[in-house]
Parts: sequence; structure tokens; C-alpha cells
Amino acid sequence: MFILSYGKTEGYKAWRMNLIYIILVVGSFAMLAVAYLAWSIRREPVKNTRMAEVAGYVRIATKAFIKRQYKTIAIFIALVLIPLSVFEWRVAVAFVFGAFLSLLAAFIGLCVAVEANVRSAEAAESSLAKAFALAFSGGAVMGLSVVGLSLLGVGTLYLFYKNPTLIVGFGFGASLAALFAQLGGGIFTKAADIGADLVGKIEQRIPEDDPRNPAVIADLVGDNVGDCAGRGSDLFESISDDYITAMILGTLLLSRFGVGAVAFPLLLGASGVLATTVGISFVKMWRRTSPVITFNLGLLITALCCVVGALVSCLLTIGDISVFYAVVCGLAASLAVGVAVQYYVSINGRVVRRVAESSERGAAINILTGLSYALQSPFMPILFILAAVIFAYLVTGSIYGVLGANIGTDLAIGFIMSSDAFGPICDNALGIAKMAKAEASVESLEELDGLGNMTKAYTKAFATASGTVSTIVMFITYGTIVGLHQADLGILNPIFIAGLLFGAALPFVFSSLTIGAAGKTAYQMVDEVRRLFRENPGIIEGKAKPDYARCVDVATKYALKRMIIPGLLAVASPIVVGFVLGKYALGAMLLGGLATSVLLSPFFTFGGGIWDNAKKLIERKFWVKGTPTHEAAVIGDTVGDPLKDVAGPSLNIFMKLTSITALLIAPVLSIL
Amino acid sequence: MFILSYGKTEGYKAWRMNLIYIILVVGSFAMLAVAYLAWSIRREPVKNTRMAEVAGYVRIATKAFIKRQYKTIAIFIALVLIPLSVFEWRVAVAFVFGAFLSLLAAFIGLCVAVEANVRSAEAAESSLAKAFALAFSGGAVMGLSVVGLSLLGVGTLYLFYKNPTLIVGFGFGASLAALFAQLGGGIFTKAADIGADLVGKIEQRIPEDDPRNPAVIADLVGDNVGDCAGRGSDLFESISDDYITAMILGTLLLSRFGVGAVAFPLLLGASGVLATTVGISFVKMWRRTSPVITFNLGLLITALCCVVGALVSCLLTIGDISVFYAVVCGLAASLAVGVAVQYYVSINGRVVRRVAESSERGAAINILTGLSYALQSPFMPILFILAAVIFAYLVTGSIYGVLGANIGTDLAIGFIMSSDAFGPICDNALGIAKMAKAEASVESLEELDGLGNMTKAYTKAFATASGTVSTIVMFITYGTIVGLHQADLGILNPIFIAGLLFGAALPFVFSSLTIGAAGKTAYQMVDEVRRLFRENPGIIEGKAKPDYARCVDVATKYALKRMIIPGLLAVASPIVVGFVLGKYALGAMLLGGLATSVLLSPFFTFGGGIWDNAKKLIERKFWVKGTPTHEAAVIGDTVGDPLKDVAGPSLNIFMKLTSITALLIAPVLSIL
Repeated sequence: MFILSYGKTEGYKAWRMNLIYIILVVGSFAMLAVAYLAWSIRREPVKNTRMAEVAGYVRIATKAFIKRQYKTIAIFIALVLIPLSVFEWRVAVAFVFGAFLSLLAAFIGLCVAVEANVRSAEAAESSLAKAFALAFSGGAVMGLSVVGLSLLGVGTLYLFYKNPTLIVGFGFGASLAALFAQLGGGIFTKAADIGADLVGKIEQRIPEDDPRNPAVIADLVGDNVGDCAGRGSDLFESISDDYITAMILGTLLLSRFGVGAVAFPLLLGASGVLATTVGISFVKMWRRTSPVITFNLGLLITALCCVVGALVSCLLTIGDISVFYAVVCGLAASLAVGVAVQYYVSINGRVVRRVAESSERGAAINILTGLSYALQSPFMPILFILAAVIFAYLVTGSIYGVLGANIGTDLAIGFIMSSDAFGPICDNALGIAKMAKAEASVESLEELDGLGNMTKAYTKAFATASGTVSTIVMFITYGTIVGLHQADLGILNPIFIAGLLFGAALPFVFSSLTIGAAGKTAYQMVDEVRRLFRENPGIIEGKAKPDYARCVDVATKYALKRMIIPGLLAVASPIVVGFVLGKYALGAMLLGGLATSVLLSPFFTFGGGIWDNAKKLIERKFWVKGTPTHEAAVIGDTVGDPLKDVAGPSLNIFMKLTSITALLIAPVLSIL
Repeated sequence: MFILSYGKTEGYKAWRMNLIYIILVVGSFAMLAVAYLAWSIRREPVKNTRMAEVAGYVRIATKAFIKRQYKTIAIFIALVLIPLSVFEWRVAVAFVFGAFLSLLAAFIGLCVAVEANVRSAEAAESSLAKAFALAFSGGAVMGLSVVGLSLLGVGTLYLFYKNPTLIVGFGFGASLAALFAQLGGGIFTKAADIGADLVGKIEQRIPEDDPRNPAVIADLVGDNVGDCAGRGSDLFESISDDYITAMILGTLLLSRFGVGAVAFPLLLGASGVLATTVGISFVKMWRRTSPVITFNLGLLITALCCVVGALVSCLLTIGDISVFYAVVCGLAASLAVGVAVQYYVSINGRVVRRVAESSERGAAINILTGLSYALQSPFMPILFILAAVIFAYLVTGSIYGVLGANIGTDLAIGFIMSSDAFGPICDNALGIAKMAKAEASVESLEELDGLGNMTKAYTKAFATASGTVSTIVMFITYGTIVGLHQADLGILNPIFIAGLLFGAALPFVFSSLTIGAAGKTAYQMVDEVRRLFRENPGIIEGKAKPDYARCVDVATKYALKRMIIPGLLAVASPIVVGFVLGKYALGAMLLGGLATSVLLSPFFTFGGGIWDNAKKLIERKFWVKGTPTHEAAVIGDTVGDPLKDVAGPSLNIFMKLTSITALLIAPVLSIL
């Protein structure tokens, strides 16, 4: 191993004190880029008044939902704050700060997304390239807000606290906010989607995004609050947790590097932010290739810049080249997950075609075939991740390598989040164009929407991959703090095994609650939409305007109510187990929870993606809307929807939240 | 703790040498009871010629399937035998013996079941009580064969080998045979069931068990080879593995008790066999209460006899009363699992009613609601099991307590297996009565069939509960042999965590393969049944007799072909991981596999049970056959079928097979 001798000189010590300011400057630069992008979008005029009207409904309803959701989250934050303030006020401050920044990042992204959608719809009438650039810029606001604010938040806290253990509160706040944002948004979006589909498309046989459908606005709002805001908070949490655990383990394991070990993750993060701005600028400027190719080139450029940035960061701080290999390996694994997405979820792939074909034998066979593929789908991505973890451990010879790989999986997070937020913007743009009957836009926007679906599927898989390594590292950090490996009999202790199985059961219960919540809310939506159609026959004839706000209201009310119980389960379980059964039982529970979460989450998201695209393939290729085959595929898609957009993504947050909560209470547990 | 001082005297040493003969006498007694029961069933004449004809089809096809299946299994046995013989010939002998006895137990049970079904159908014309007694006696043959042959097999091997480590081969043989028996039988039964339902009931709208349906005989055969023979091999494996691990750990941990520690599990098992004969005799004789109450009384009497037997066994061998508490605790947990079955699967319960109601909103909502309940259903049974494990560990202060609890969960296995095999006999009897148009029998048999469905659901949950504790004990045994708790960094080692997650992924892949196999075979059946109806329009008009044998043949051919790949995965994975990645990685893999198997298995079986009964509730209560609500429920039931009868039960065997394979190679791995 090659250690930069510079690390031991006086000059280095002076320099590393300034490192934290460099990190804050990079974070601020990301937020300036956000401001520029937001301005560049808003300066585009909206001339089409019908589009403006529809977009207005969506914007108002989205902001209304977010306001009510944030109020509910604020109550939880306040409730948790009370015991936390007694415990340690600096942690409490970090907690509020983390929750606030997480929600702020999502809010900024959302505000711009609801401006970008209509402008992209309008631009599509004349130019596909411009529509793509506008939608991608809108997504980039979310991407850069997430990575920028995370870096600024953790950096600022380190500047003041100088002790990474106190910053755990930041991760906890971010996780808690993310869980509720994802749960509320997810339940809302699926209830609205199912309500719109089941009653509108199947019962009334009107097309998707038809203005006669009372749930159509709720459906568009759902895309924003679920996919866009939810995932933003999720990835904000992921990256923040990774900085924090890396700083803690760095202090514990690599004290010989001094502040370098602490600065390393943040500098690495900063290089990722810079790489992201390069990638985003490329996508925004480059107009010579099709959107799909441009997007892939942008990701490639980002990844290459990340590699260079990682090398520089390694050399400047800890100076151990083997950690650089570990970082690159993590980055590669996070990108390789895309291969699995391509294989399972791609509309042109074998898996989706088989499921589509199986629909000819009815809904049950469609679901069984999809289920069979969904159950095997976690295997390939998990092999990539585990290979990265093992390689990183062996190449560095220490756990610090795993930690490097962990931040490696986050390096491209800004770009990937941008492409994720791009999805709902395109989806909204398409909806707006259809509702405004702007036929000229529809074709271009359908192409972009297809790309958006692919990037959304990829981001979910990416979030799981990144979350898996994060959770492994959090588990190791927790175990190191409480001395888990020193427990009596270790792993052969029956109480440890019992704790592990108990932990493994929790994600099943949590998923049950989230799917149940989405299902119940969905069928209240079904009842509401049916009632609206029944009470006013003018709606279906196109003579009367349906009461869009009523559907938004029903979805909002029940989604916010039903996010509470699964949320409580996630927060309470580590605290109860930790204080009642002790630190070893909690460690076992975390490991068990990790084991099932990392499998259930991709099982849900890949499964949902497969059913979704099988339906789309049938609609696209065979033109058999309304046949029994198509109906079978629609049933599969409806089953898959809450799995891929509620259960899967919230499980990602669940595993990280339980781990960060354990880390938060670890110092107390270890002296009990 | 109270230790019987007798344990140290010379008289004790002489006595414990004779203990093994007592055990063999009890085993032989069970087989005599089997012979008597078989004789008492066969002496009943079959007067109804139409019933005899239908039963003849079922009997011939069942035996034909079993012969072909056993031939295929024999090939695998032979393939595994070659390396095993090189390795250690005594283990190889035990292996063949285990596989042979496992298949023999299932075969004896099956031969009597196909005689009992028609006699029960005929008896139902005059007396419900007699029909019940006949069906239960038929089931008892399977129950007693399983526990009797297991005790005889392990006892005989101990008599010759005197070294429990060599008997691991017996468990391995039993497991391997069980896996293939369950997989082949399970795929067959579900393909036949789905084929019969989808084409017959839904497309052609003819009732269940209608003689015009070409798949109806295959469906009845499936009940025998899947539920009856499959579960028999499963429980044979469970109880044999438990004897063996208890003897090994007894030798390792309790050398101070000498042969007593080894004799204890077998004596305990013998007491369970005796208790079972008491319970079965009661059910066979008692005619004063309804079948449900009689059955519950029989279980209660068996359990009480088990408690007395356990006390005597404890005092006579190891003389530690705390182990007795552990045994009782295990027994109680295995029975308490019935509460969860009652809550989730009972047709009169809240869960089934909710799922039935949700069917009014279409198939997708039915499936989502069922999925939500299925995901939470493993929680309650696992809490019972974990509580028993923790109590047993704490009350005895040693792992030997967990082992006691483990055998405790098996004590009532004979009675429970009897009630399980009773299920398919009733189901067959009902089918035979319907096909023979013996209306007088149908009502009584429907009552018995309802009870049979309940006992089948309970046995599956019981098998998971018992299998979970078995696997925990096998894991601890493996870990003790290879010194898993002494690994570097223990549980915090990234390679250990990676191994654990890899192991956790395997049950997902395995389930994917089994569900995929059932799904594919099912849709080949659908195509075949459609073809038969199309080619001969006389069938649906009742003028031509359909070609039953053709459907049996298709299901047999594909079921046997498709059981191979999942079977190979289960056998190969521990061997490959053990020899390539080492003993610690294999330990981690076992623990990960345990964590997901014990959750996925009840998730599948409870889920399938919920959907099944939701459909039945709709059919029974609302009399709405053919409405969209009913169709939605039928779709749910069809999805649930392969989950509850293929994926869930074979996962039980999967986790035990991987563990026993690991145990088999543990002595080699630990010196590598």
C-alpha cells in the first residue's frame, strides 16, 4: 500500500483544516447551479392556455399535498425532538437540521418540477431535443439539491461539532423525514393511479389521462409527490448516512490519518457533486444524439469524472490507493445494477415478453409468471453488491475498504437522482399534453416518458443497491461501537438467532402495512371515482367537468393517515428492542432486517416494473386493448403498482432508518 | 436444577444399554398398528361400482406417478451415492437407508389412502361418523408410518454405528428424497388443479369434480401425491433430523450424561409415538361428538400423553427437569401455531372475510389485500417459536434446552401427520362421490373436506414451525462443529455478512424456480385440457368420456422434469459454498437462508390458504358463482395455489436439506 508521505507534514495539517471550507464551497456551488437551472426553466413562457390550466391544477394540488404532508411530518419531528433534547441538545439540533434539509431538497425539486412539466409539454410541440433538455433540467434541480444540501448540511455540522458521533442526529432526521415523505407520497400516488385506472380505464373504458376521469389530476400529482419527492428524500438520507458512518468509522479505525480520514468521505462527496454538474451540463447542451444515448453518455461522463475525483480525494486525504480501488468498485457495482434492470424490466427483454405472453392464459398465470421472475430478480443485483463488498474488503484488508465502496455507490447519486426526477416530469408533461389535446406533443413525450420509466426503474434499483451497502456499513459501525462480535457464543447464541429472525420478520410486517395502506386507500379512491361518475352522468359524456379536487382530497387525507402506523413501527422497533432486550439483540435484529429488506425491496420493485412493462408491451405491440389478454395484464400491473412504488422504496428507507436509529442510541446502549 | 442421582450408578449403565431395544420395540409396535389399520380399512367392502370405477382410475394413476417419480429419485440417490461411498461407506449406507425409509413411509401411507378414500365416500352415504373414522384411519397409517419408520431407522443405525455423526447420512437421504417427493408431487398437484379449474370451471363453466372435465382425475391424484406423500416425506425428514442433531449435540455438550444424552431424544420420540397411538385410537373409537371436536380432543389427549412421556423420558435418561420444561415449551409452541392458522386462514375469520369482500373491487384488489395479510402472517407463528427457543435456552442455561424444545415440537408429529393425510382422503372421497353422482354422500363429505382443509393448513404451518426449530438446531450443531463463533471479527466480518445475504437470496431463487415450474406445467395443462375439449365436442355434452390418462401423463412428465433444477440448487449450494468459500461462509449462508425461508414459507402457505378460503366463503355465503366478484376470488385462489402447495412446503425442506448437507460435510470442512 502506498501512503502519501505528504500526509505527515506540517503543510498537510494546515491544508486539511481548509478542506472543510472547500467542501462547503462545492455544496454552495451546487445550490447556485440549482438556482440557475430553476431560473432558466421559469424564464421560458407558457403560451398554451389549456396546458397552463391543467398544469395549474397539478401545481396547486401538489403544493397543497406537500404542505399538509410536511405539517404531519413536523408533528412527528416535534414528538421525537422532546426526548432527544433531553438526551443531547447538539444531536437534537442536528436532527432538526437533517429533517429540514431533506424536506427542503425535495421541496425545491418539486417546485421546479411542476414548472418544468408544462414547459416541456409545450416545447415538445416544436422540438423533442428542447423538451428533453427542459425536462432533464427540471430533474437536475432535484438531483443537485439533494447532493448539494446533504454536503452542506453534514459539512456545516462538522465545522461546528468536530465530532461525527453527534452528527448521527442529522442522518436520523433525514431518515425519519424520508420515511414519511416516501410513505405518504407512495400511498397517495398508488391510490390515485389505481383509482384512475380501475374505474376510468377498465370500467368506463376511457383512455389514460382523459380529462373526463376525475382521478386524472390526482394521478399526475401522485407522480410528483411519490416518485419525485419521495425518492429525493430517500437518496438524501442515503448519501448523508454514508458520510456520517464513514466519518465515525474513519475516526475509530484510521486515527493515524487524523482529520484526513474524516475529511475523505466529504471530499469524495464533493468530487461526486462536481462530476454530477459536468454530466448534467453535458446532457443539457448536447443535442446531437437521441435522448437515450445522450442520457447514457451523460452518465458515463459523470462516472469518469467521479473516478478522477475519487483518485484526487484519496491522494489528498488518506493517501491509500487501495481505498481508491474500493471506491471505484462500489461505483461500478452501483452502475452494474443497471444490467439487472435492463434484463428484467426492459420492455424489449425476454422476461417482460414472457410475462406478456403468459397473460393469454389469464390474470392468474400472468401474476404467477411475474411472481416467479420477481422472486429471482434480486439475485443478480445482490451478487454485484456482494462482490463489490468482498473485493473492497480484501483489496484494502480492512473494513475501511467497505466504507470506501459504500461512498463509491453514492458518487453518481446526483446524476441518477436527476434522471429519476426527469421521469415524473415527462409523465406529467405527457398527461398535460393529452388533457390539453395537444396531439403534436404526444408522440415526442411518449418517447421521453418511456425513457423516464426506464430511469425510474433504474433509480429504484440503484437506491436499493446503495442502501444495501449503506446498511451493511451502518451495521458494522453499530457492531463496532457496542462490541457485537464479543458477545457470548456470538452467532451461535440462541438469543442472537432469535433476534435475527425477529428482525427478519419486521420487513414483512412493514411491507404488509404499506401494501395494506395503499390497497385500502386505493379502494376508497375506487369508490369515490365510481360515486363521482354515478352522481353526474355528464362527466362521461364530456359535458361536465369532474371534481378533480375531491379525488386529490380523498387521496391526501387517507395517505397521510395511513403513513403513521408503518412509520411508527420503523422508528419504535429498534428503540424498544435496544432498551428492552439489549444491544446484542438489537444488532441481531438489524442484521435480520437487512437480510430480508435487501431481497424484498428489489422483489417488489422489479416485480412491479415487469408487470407494468408487460402491460405496456401488450398495448404497444398487439394493439389489443380491451381483450381478455390485456385485462389480465392490467390486473398484473395494478397488483405490481403498490409493490414497486410504495412497498419497495419505503423498505429501502426502513432498513436505513432502523440502522441509523440504532446508531443514534448505540453510545447509550454500550454503557448500559 | 435437579439431577437424578441414579444417572451415575452402575444399574443405570446396564439399563441404558437396553434402552435402544425399547425404542426399537416401540417403532415396531407403530408399524404393527399400521398393519392393523390397513387391514381394518381394506376389509370394508366397496359395493358402489361407479365409485369403485372412479377410485380405480385414481389408484392406478397415483401408483403410476409414484413409480415414475421414485425411479427419477433413485437416479439422484445413485448419483449422490458415488461420491458418498468414497467419502465414508457407513454414511453412504445410512444415506440410502434414510431415503428408502422416507419413500417407504410415504408409499405405505399412499397405498392405504387410495383405498380409504372410496370406502369413506361409500360410508358417507349412511354415516358421517363412520366416514370420518375410515378417513382418519387412512390418515393414521401415514402418520404412524412416518414416526414409526423414522424411529426404527435412526434406532437401528445407532445400534450398529454407536456414533451419531455417521447417522447424518440418514437425515441427508431422507431430506433429499423428501425434497424431490414434495417438488414433484407439488408441481403435479398444482398443474392439475389449475388446469382443471381454469379450463373446466372458468372457461367451460362446469362444476368442480365434474366427470366431463379431463383433468379431474389428475386433480384427485395430485391431492394424494402432493399433500399426502409430499408432507409425509417432509415430516419424516424433520423428525429424523431432530433425533440426529440431538444425538450429536448431546454427545458434544452433555458427555457427563453418557449414553443417556444420546438415548434421550429417541426415548422422547418413542413416547411421542405411543402418545400418538393413544390419540389415534381415541379418534377412531369416539363417536359422540362432531368430527371437529373429536379431532381437537384427540390432539389434546395426544399432547397430554406426550407431556407425561416427556417427563418419564427426561427422568430416565438425563434426569434434568429443566430440559423437560424446554420440551413442553416446544410442544406448546408447535400447537400454538394453530392459533395463527385459525386467525388467518379460518373461513369464519376476519382476515378471510376481508379478502372476500375486497374481491368486489376486482381481482387486483383481492390479490393486494391477500398479499398484505400474507406478508404479516409469519409474524405471529414466528413469535411463538422464538419465545419457545428463548425460554428453552434460559430455563436450561444451555443450548441443550433448545434441542429439547426442538424435539418437543415433533412430539405430536404422528397425530398431526395423520390429520394431514386425512385431508386428501376426504378431498378424494368427495371427488369420487361427485363423479359417481352419489348425492347422499356429498353433504357429509363436504363437512369432512372442510375439516381436512383446516388440518392441511395447520400441518403446513406446523411443518414450518417444527422445521424452523430444527434448522436453528442444525445451524448451531454445524457452527459448534466448525467453530463458527471463533471466526475472525465474527459477525462484523464483511465476508460473513456477504455470505449471509447470499444465503438469504437463495430461498427467493428457489421459490422462483418452484413457482415457475408449477406455472409452466399448469399452462401446459391448460393447453392440453383446452385441446381435449376442442377436439372432442362430445365431452362437454357428456356423451364422450374424456381421456383422463392423457392429463395425468402430461402432468407427470413435466412435473418430474421440472423438479430437477430446484432440487439441484438445494443440494449443490451448500456443497459448492462450503468447499469453495469455506466453512464460515457456509455457516453464514445457512443463517441467511434460515432467515428468509422461515418467513417466505408461511408467507406462501398462509397466503394461499387465505385466497383459497376467501373463494370458498364467497361460494358458500353469497352464492355468486360466475359473478365478477367470484371470478376475482378464483384468480386469487389460482395464484395462491402453487404458493401454498409447492413453494411453501418445498421451502421447508429446502432449509432443512441445505442444513443437513452442511452437517454432512462439516467434519471434512473443519479439518480443511
